[in-house]
Amino acid sequence: MPDSPAPLRGYLSDNAAGGSPEILAAVTAASAGLAAPYGNDEHSRALVAKVTEVFERPADVFAVGTGSAANGIAIAALTPPWGSVLGHRTAHIDTDEAGAPEFFADGAKIVGLEGADSRIDPDALRAAVARRRGDVHSVQPSVLSITQATESGSVYGLDEIRELSRIAHDAGLRVHMDGARFANALVTLDVTAAEMTWRSGIDILSFGATKNGALTADAIISFDPALRTELSYRHKRGGQLTSKMRFQTAQLHAYLSDDLWLRNARHANAMATRLREGLAQAPGVRILGDLAANILFFHFPDDLIAGLLDRGYGFYHDRWAPGTVRLVTSFVHRENDIDDLLAAVAELTRR
Amino acid sequence: MPDSPAPLRGYLSDNAAGGSPEILAAVTAASAGLAAPYGNDEHSRALVAKVTEVFERPADVFAVGTGSAANGIAIAALTPPWGSVLGHRTAHIDTDEAGAPEFFADGAKIVGLEGADSRIDPDALRAAVARRRGDVHSVQPSVLSITQATESGSVYGLDEIRELSRIAHDAGLRVHMDGARFANALVTLDVTAAEMTWRSGIDILSFGATKNGALTADAIISFDPALRTELSYRHKRGGQLTSKMRFQTAQLHAYLSDDLWLRNARHANAMATRLREGLAQAPGVRILGDLAANILFFHFPDDLIAGLLDRGYGFYHDRWAPGTVRLVTSFVHRENDIDDLLAAVAELTRR
Amino acid sequence: MPDSPAPLRGYLSDNAAGGSPEILAAVTAASAGLAAPYGNDEHSRALVAKVTEVFERPADVFAVGTGSAANGIAIAALTPPWGSVLGHRTAHIDTDEAGAPEFFADGAKIVGLEGADSRIDPDALRAAVARRRGDVHSVQPSVLSITQATESGSVYGLDEIRELSRIAHDAGLRVHMDGARFANALVTLDVTAAEMTWRSGIDILSFGATKNGALTADAIISFDPALRTELSYRHKRGGQLTSKMRFQTAQLHAYLSDDLWLRNARHANAMATRLREGLAQAPGVRILGDLAANILFFHFPDDLIAGLLDRGYGFYHDRWAPGTVRLVTSFVHRENDIDDLLAAVAELTRR
Amino acid sequence: MPDSPAPLRGYLSDNAAGGSPEILAAVTAASAGLAAPYGNDEHSRALVAKVTEVFERPADVFAVGTGSAANGIAIAALTPPWGSVLGHRTAHIDTDEAGAPEFFADGAKIVGLEGADSRIDPDALRAAVARRRGDVHSVQPSVLSITQATESGSVYGLDEIRELSRIAHDAGLRVHMDGARFANALVTLDVTAAEMTWRSGIDILSFGATKNGALTADAIISFDPALRTELSYRHKRGGQLTSKMRFQTAQLHAYLSDDLWLRNARHANAMATRLREGLAQAPGVRILGDLAANILFFHFPDDLIAGLLDRGYGFYHDRWAPGTVRLVTSFVHRENDIDDLLAAVAELTRR
Repeated sequence: MPDSPAPLRGYLSDNAAGGSPEILAAVTAASAGLAAPYGNDEHSRALVAKVTEVFERPADVFAVGTGSAANGIAIAALTPPWGSVLGHRTAHIDTDEAGAPEFFADGAKIVGLEGADSRIDPDALRAAVARRRGDVHSVQPSVLSITQATESGSVYGLDEIRELSRIAHDAGLRVHMDGARFANALVTLDVTAAEMTWRSGIDILSFGATKNGALTADAIISFDPALRTELSYRHKRGGQLTSKMRFQTAQLHAYLSDDLWLRNARHANAMATRLREGLAQAPGVRILGDLAANILFFHFPDDLIAGLLDRGYGFYHDRWAPGTVRLVTSFVHRENDIDDLLAAVAELTRR
Repeated sequence: MPDSPAPLRGYLSDNAAGGSPEILAAVTAASAGLAAPYGNDEHSRALVAKVTEVFERPADVFAVGTGSAANGIAIAALTPPWGSVLGHRTAHIDTDEAGAPEFFADGAKIVGLEGADSRIDPDALRAAVARRRGDVHSVQPSVLSITQATESGSVYGLDEIRELSRIAHDAGLRVHMDGARFANALVTLDVTAAEMTWRSGIDILSFGATKNGALTADAIISFDPALRTELSYRHKRGGQLTSKMRFQTAQLHAYLSDDLWLRNARHANAMATRLREGLAQAPGVRILGDLAANILFFHFPDDLIAGLLDRGYGFYHDRWAPGTVRLVTSFVHRENDIDDLLAAVAELTRR
Repeated sequence: MPDSPAPLRGYLSDNAAGGSPEILAAVTAASAGLAAPYGNDEHSRALVAKVTEVFERPADVFAVGTGSAANGIAIAALTPPWGSVLGHRTAHIDTDEAGAPEFFADGAKIVGLEGADSRIDPDALRAAVARRRGDVHSVQPSVLSITQATESGSVYGLDEIRELSRIAHDAGLRVHMDGARFANALVTLDVTAAEMTWRSGIDILSFGATKNGALTADAIISFDPALRTELSYRHKRGGQLTSKMRFQTAQLHAYLSDDLWLRNARHANAMATRLREGLAQAPGVRILGDLAANILFFHFPDDLIAGLLDRGYGFYHDRWAPGTVRLVTSFVHRENDIDDLLAAVAELTRR
Repeated sequence: MPDSPAPLRGYLSDNAAGGSPEILAAVTAASAGLAAPYGNDEHSRALVAKVTEVFERPADVFAVGTGSAANGIAIAALTPPWGSVLGHRTAHIDTDEAGAPEFFADGAKIVGLEGADSRIDPDALRAAVARRRGDVHSVQPSVLSITQATESGSVYGLDEIRELSRIAHDAGLRVHMDGARFANALVTLDVTAAEMTWRSGIDILSFGATKNGALTADAIISFDPALRTELSYRHKRGGQLTSKMRFQTAQLHAYLSDDLWLRNARHANAMATRLREGLAQAPGVRILGDLAANILFFHFPDDLIAGLLDRGYGFYHDRWAPGTVRLVTSFVHRENDIDDLLAAVAELTRR
């Protein structure tokens, strides 16, 4: 990628990127020799130590192949089948996983809450945690699931996470964070991983790495040792305990080493900022929402959309509302890729 | 690995091996540029074409991260929750997956059948498929699952597969093959992939690649287009639809290219033959079972076991019966690794 | 009950009533002699004949102990686990069964639709059946569930049922009717059971009898023979196949005989009419919604609510909105019970 | 029944009997007036008090419609989905419930143990509870399920129950008793309900009443208050929380009142004794197993089987082995019914 002469024109999602060179190198290095399977190897042990260091606390780590598996298994460990999981109504767990959380959690119900910018409104949460508590005819609120960064690219502040967690914990719920874009949110807030998770009340984290540099490796990171057994068996039973686990844990270790994850995220976010600032000037273009992580929403004129698609740019449009365009940057986009897009917009809007 | 100066002394399982260099190279190559996610990329399309070529028939291919996921999803597509899955009583699906098939198949029941050498006895199958058909008080036989090569390293002949498949199909069951060591069995029989699967009555295959050279990539290969929709949604819902699918399909493509899979399997089997022939001479060592693929069973004297463990050799022992030892070879074992073990045995049994 | 001297003052729900004398007699009569278990008895066979007569078509009948079981098993037979069930957002299946449909249907998702008076809006349904069809990241619309009479006592007209069914069928969904108050709706519309079900596109019916005279017997009535096997095993596996099935089928047979079910429903509805007409005159009382079956909503002044509660009347209030009161009549309420309530209201509102 | 002039000739199962007159009367009486639904009524409260008295200890009671539901819900409250349930290999939960326990327990696995006379061998249990503890690749032993009386009519002694419970508890398992024929076993042992359950280590009981006089009412009786919430929601979610619960709890109350349950069971057992003693004399008839409760096994000559069937006697034969006959007596069989059968045997074997 670094030397690709042609500009990258895809902004559909950060999952269109390949892997970071450092992670590819780690995978290749991990292949040497024989290793104990199922996570009983050096790479997997090193990952646990690295997570402990990064999160400033011992934690249980379970590498998985997808964010859906991370979310499903994490949630299943926190709710009985007759429980409900409270998330924003746009949450990936409710809208984009084809029922994976219900599958992993043996039929638990997901309840969508309101809130601006894909962030759960604390009052909506207060009402939801109290609804029909102890009523045997109703599923019982059991888990709060917060997406950080959210599906629309916004980011909860630490205060917001703490407030939501407190409401949940006070009502006896456990708190899950869907961190598919954890690093992007972290660098936006410029806080520590500990601050954004367990110090703010998060019990368990779906730690995304794939969108920000890994090949196919995410992880469940649990801050509650009491969940270990439940998670271990659900991880195996859910088809996620790979025999050659070292190939996943080596990815995650490299991702967390030498600040690679933070560097990648900062770069992706910076590209978003560059893009947003450039587009702020474009005639007919309207910025929607605040800048936060690496997802941007705009209103584009129809002919601008058509013109960009015609030139090979890729992005979602007209999904949320007519003229609404989503652009997602990633660690592989370079400044000249952004500038290439801005130039195209300038040219198309000049006419 | 190729240049490792120290001999490999691990014979616990073929999943202790790393990845084939060709597959590592393919992963690195697949990382270039942006790619459509979720299998809508060139590598994934190329894999489908490759599978069609290798199996001499169009097939649906779903890459997965583990054999347990492959088995679980494949079986779930073939049985209702009130069905039963007939397998050998030593089958991995019944004994080593912590209930993954029951999880993926919404509570279907696995029924263990008898048969020598981990191979299902046709008469046992005949009895099982007929048992309580149409009796609403009993789960209904719905799937036959054959492991090839079996858990004890034996291999079904084509005639045996055909007979079992015919019994199953005649009774209205569908047929699944757990091919965690598919290539090892294939080269043992010296037949084509088509002959060992759909031409012998297999409806769906868990195609193992990880044990024989891939990093973490297996696949469900379905020969029945009617299963496509069911498999697609179960694959996604089961947490197996990776966004950067190209990293898995590129592995499988490389695995199937240039006969890599067959070369690796032939090598592993040849190492098993070399080991077996060498141990045939050793005083006090008794060979158990026939040679088939890359799993060998022996009876070793206690002091031989102790001596080998003491020197750093790794293998399972005393699990099946006192003195019973299992040795598994893989594509990474070299002739001098085998000779190193044989020399140690010779020395330990000489005394 | 018929001779109870004290007036009945409970209007919480029609499930507070006992059983019809005819049904009690049928249960006692069914007890004589030995009978084949699990529905292979004369009473169960007679029920099938009776259902065929009443519904003017052969149908499969599965007696169950609760409406939740009827709904859960019926829905499970119509949807894969990765499907969604479209119902009104107030539907009992979504709000009052503690996740029973998700349990019986192996984790399928219930999606709540909008519509006035607890009736699904056809445009909302049109949008919902089309949403993300074929998108593997989303559950797939598989079942339309219509409640007749609805949770708020309203009743779909035949035209409405037909329109909704047509939208569903055209999109490949199956149609379930939750008929917990089937008879009340039927006599409101003054149509035949056939017209309100299969002639209007209903594939499967949860046929309620308990609220209208049975002791604890409802039934799944399926108009699609292709569902028979699936229903049979799910019925057994769901813990609903009673050994002494005659005691349930005798109830249902008596319920359908000599128009008992229609007489009971007409009576309950007439009591609702009497109540509503009487309350129309009461100062400060506002009628909410149209009269349809045996559920009525009003706005009562606070002191009227307090006064009635104080005198021992039972009803839900302030659940939906401040001052909103729900009164449910049943087959056991007599004219003098209604008049007793009206007199109390008159007295309390006079002051 | 008491005055039926024709002799009862059915010995297929005790579930062929109707209901006890006392229970029918209780159902009719329970119908009077309005009552709070879902178990918040007087009859249901009275049942709890009665169970407390009979079992000499406060307990949670959940009425259900079938033994399968009782077993499924009870077991589900004791095991995680990745657990295993250890029962005798002939246990009803494994062989006759079409996978209901797997359904209710979200896919947990049932493991069949050996033991003579359908009684679990303590050594088999010792081995099973220890098998692969803590091995994430295997389901984990979580529940011991004892059937009392067993499927073959035998009865565990108190010492045996205590020994099995101790083995289970020492290994961290919970203990369930499937008491479909609880009363028959109790009167055989001539002990108290407390002695046969919680004083001997039983945590939760499927309390059967249907086979011994109820219409369709069994119950889950839990001696562990910590299970209450879990059981409540699973009971509702499993479709077992009837609105007119009084009709089930009134049955169970009458069943436990005035020793009706014990009188019925003593009578059924006495009829078994009379039958067995009578048949001991019959030429060619061989008694199989020891007398215990109300299930008897014999070896009959083929022509005796044919002759009896020809005269309208009903019983299972040739299911277990050629010539093996099972006769089950119940509370409705009278002495002259038994004598009628003995006379027929005498006549048929005389020739």
